Amino acid sequence: MTTPLRLGIAGLGTVGIGVVKIVRQHAALLKARTGRDIVITAISARNRDKDRGVSMSGYAWEDDPVALATRDDVDVYVEVMGGTDGPAKVSTQAALAAGKDVVTANKAMLAIHGQALAEQAEAAGRVIRYEAAVAGGIPVIKALSEGLAGNEITRVMGVMNGTCNYILTRMEKAGLSYQEAFAEADGLGYVEADPTLDVGGIDAGHKLTLLSAIAFGTKPDFDGMELEGIERVSIDDIRAAADMGYRIKLLGVAQRTGRGLEQRMQPCLVPANSPLGQLEGGTNMVVIEGDAVEQIVLRGPGAGEGPTASAVMGDVCDIARGLRLPTFGQPAHTLETATRARSQLPAPFYLRMELMDKPGALAKIATILGNSGISIDRMRQYDHDGTNAPVLIVTHKTSRAALDDALAAMETTDVISTAPVALRIEHL
Amino acid sequence: MTTPLRLGIAGLGTVGIGVVKIVRQHAALLKARTGRDIVITAISARNRDKDRGVSMSGYAWEDDPVALATRDDVDVYVEVMGGTDGPAKVSTQAALAAGKDVVTANKAMLAIHGQALAEQAEAAGRVIRYEAAVAGGIPVIKALSEGLAGNEITRVMGVMNGTCNYILTRMEKAGLSYQEAFAEADGLGYVEADPTLDVGGIDAGHKLTLLSAIAFGTKPDFDGMELEGIERVSIDDIRAAADMGYRIKLLGVAQRTGRGLEQRMQPCLVPANSPLGQLEGGTNMVVIEGDAVEQIVLRGPGAGEGPTASAVMGDVCDIARGLRLPTFGQPAHTLETATRARSQLPAPFYLRMELMDKPGALAKIATILGNSGISIDRMRQYDHDGTNAPVLIVTHKTSRAALDDALAAMETTDVISTAPVALRIEHL
Repeated sequence: MTTPLRLGIAGLGTVGIGVVKIVRQHAALLKARTGRDIVITAISARNRDKDRGVSMSGYAWEDDPVALATRDDVDVYVEVMGGTDGPAKVSTQAALAAGKDVVTANKAMLAIHGQALAEQAEAAGRVIRYEAAVAGGIPVIKALSEGLAGNEITRVMGVMNGTCNYILTRMEKAGLSYQEAFAEADGLGYVEADPTLDVGGIDAGHKLTLLSAIAFGTKPDFDGMELEGIERVSIDDIRAAADMGYRIKLLGVAQRTGRGLEQRMQPCLVPANSPLGQLEGGTNMVVIEGDAVEQIVLRGPGAGEGPTASAVMGDVCDIARGLRLPTFGQPAHTLETATRARSQLPAPFYLRMELMDKPGALAKIATILGNSGISIDRMRQYDHDGTNAPVLIVTHKTSRAALDDALAAMETTDVISTAPVALRIEHL
Repeated sequence: MTTPLRLGIAGLGTVGIGVVKIVRQHAALLKARTGRDIVITAISARNRDKDRGVSMSGYAWEDDPVALATRDDVDVYVEVMGGTDGPAKVSTQAALAAGKDVVTANKAMLAIHGQALAEQAEAAGRVIRYEAAVAGGIPVIKALSEGLAGNEITRVMGVMNGTCNYILTRMEKAGLSYQEAFAEADGLGYVEADPTLDVGGIDAGHKLTLLSAIAFGTKPDFDGMELEGIERVSIDDIRAAADMGYRIKLLGVAQRTGRGLEQRMQPCLVPANSPLGQLEGGTNMVVIEGDAVEQIVLRGPGAGEGPTASAVMGDVCDIARGLRLPTFGQPAHTLETATRARSQLPAPFYLRMELMDKPGALAKIATILGNSGISIDRMRQYDHDGTNAPVLIVTHKTSRAALDDALAAMETTDVISTAPVALRIEHL
């Protein structure tokens, strides 16, 4: 005789509705797999009367998510409202205080408040699960924290914002400008109410923050991440990159260096024929490298009702089965404070600039790079349009600091008509 | 205060040594993640005196794996000897009877005896874990049985034998014959002592059997699988497939049909630009499709000391953390006996044949296909060499039964010089 596992769901948007559908449609399957009935007892959302295409009449209604989270007939509080602070955070804290387990899709809340919430949960003997918060339907939290637990993780990389990848893919495939592709994505409803969450790299940065904490045993440190959005990626860069066998992706990389933890979320060039380079549209990909496993690549839908609800239900099933572990894989109080290493690791870089039509212009640029200790792997100069000539340079590996020195020196010359674009190149 | 988790390891080949290395090198990391010391207390192998490059002096030695498996100071029996029956099976049964949990990399034993072993384990309240048995370092058992537990799984596909993929890749890249590529793989030590385990598709079939049981809640049914090896794949087929945008892979597919469970492991054509088509060498890939998650693709090293030991240690960490679930995701006594549906699902097929240089030869073939209700998607006839002309046909979707009828009818004509090759085409 086992008792049912009772869910209280706060938030009836795409994800919440997806969860309701799975619980209803797969009642028998879920019971066969977990040995328990999984039922919804209560729900909460902003608007009670909205038609959601699914009857909610069988569930108790709460206007206040805190009231929902603390109900006696709720075992697991499913927080799928979103938001860094506000009701999401308050209700999550209330749920933990009331002895509930929490399943959430809220990457922003966990990236910022995850350490405190994890400590609260562990002190209370409760779990916080958040597979849906990172890379949609891909079970990457589970792979990293459980499947690869025997590894020292050496690097985690990922393309984890479908909106950005959609925009970049459309720019390349349809020759759209950034503004045109953004407008198209916005028209399709792909862009968050605050677009900088997507195109500014913040959403993807939140996700990488969580992976990084699990991978390296460090407290989530979103503020320690180098963050750069895709707003300044131009169609010229996309074309030039393609010309040299690369694609531009908003790529997250977290890696231990000799000086600490390096976390970056920024537009990068990746080889067009690599798994990351071939990723299109809203599909996400995460690459995990460990000392024993070498390299694992996980790919799947990064958003959407079904995939995100699948991830939420994976967590719910774990709880039903009694599979419990600390939020970030090891107890929160044992996580180290990450030493921030910004741009320690050398990499090749892509540079694009417009040179004025003056004798010796290219020589000046090449000299500046040489003086900064940067050697050139490939260079292409295209036809002058009369006054300016586009120049593309791929450097050998160099540090970001040396590159920044060189870029500053270039600005002081009289041969550059617009400031150079510099993007990191990542090889898988 | 927690007690250490004590491992007894039977088998000190590649995998066993890899496990020993991880336990030693990552003692602190494993303790941080699982909250327990993970230690090796005893070992067993065929040859005690062999130099394995790692000192074994700290561990008790047992000549007999059964003695090892039942030692009082062993909590988890790690069976990495291999073999369907014999010592592996006897010692696993003994371990379960003695109240030990079991971690194994043994796909053959579980594909054949998994049902009985799972029942024994569950009756004893013990677990059998086998992440290392399928797709090397890829945590696919965990993804399927836990991460995707909220899905009705609709299809599982995979390239899961690195040796076959190596041979097929070398045939395509280097233009080697099957025999030449096999000899090369054998020289590199990639081929099992009994080569048919690899090239006959048996090893990959064992792996698919296990995935299939988890995915569909059915008893492992290796005997119900359509099995075909790569021995008859010719360089001509590889070239012809490439010519039409395909690659040939030893591909496993398990899928529910209206008539039951269809399980196939056979050489198939897949689009050259698909994730499966791009897989090279020893890398494995598993594709899981579920009603909510849509499609997840997992890729990683399919063999080798580090990756396989990583998978074993993931299981060991789960046990150390108290994460326990039934062998095939749901209790063994609730698994259904699969109804076998052989080749129910229609597919496009690739046909290659040599036609004699006779008037109306091609018309006869086309007529036979038409009479069997098979329509032609693409056809290519190449230059006659004087007497014969190679002909390639890609059909539209048809059943294997209709195709077999057509192939039989072709044999009775006087226009075919060698029996046609027919390979299924799978689109992702």
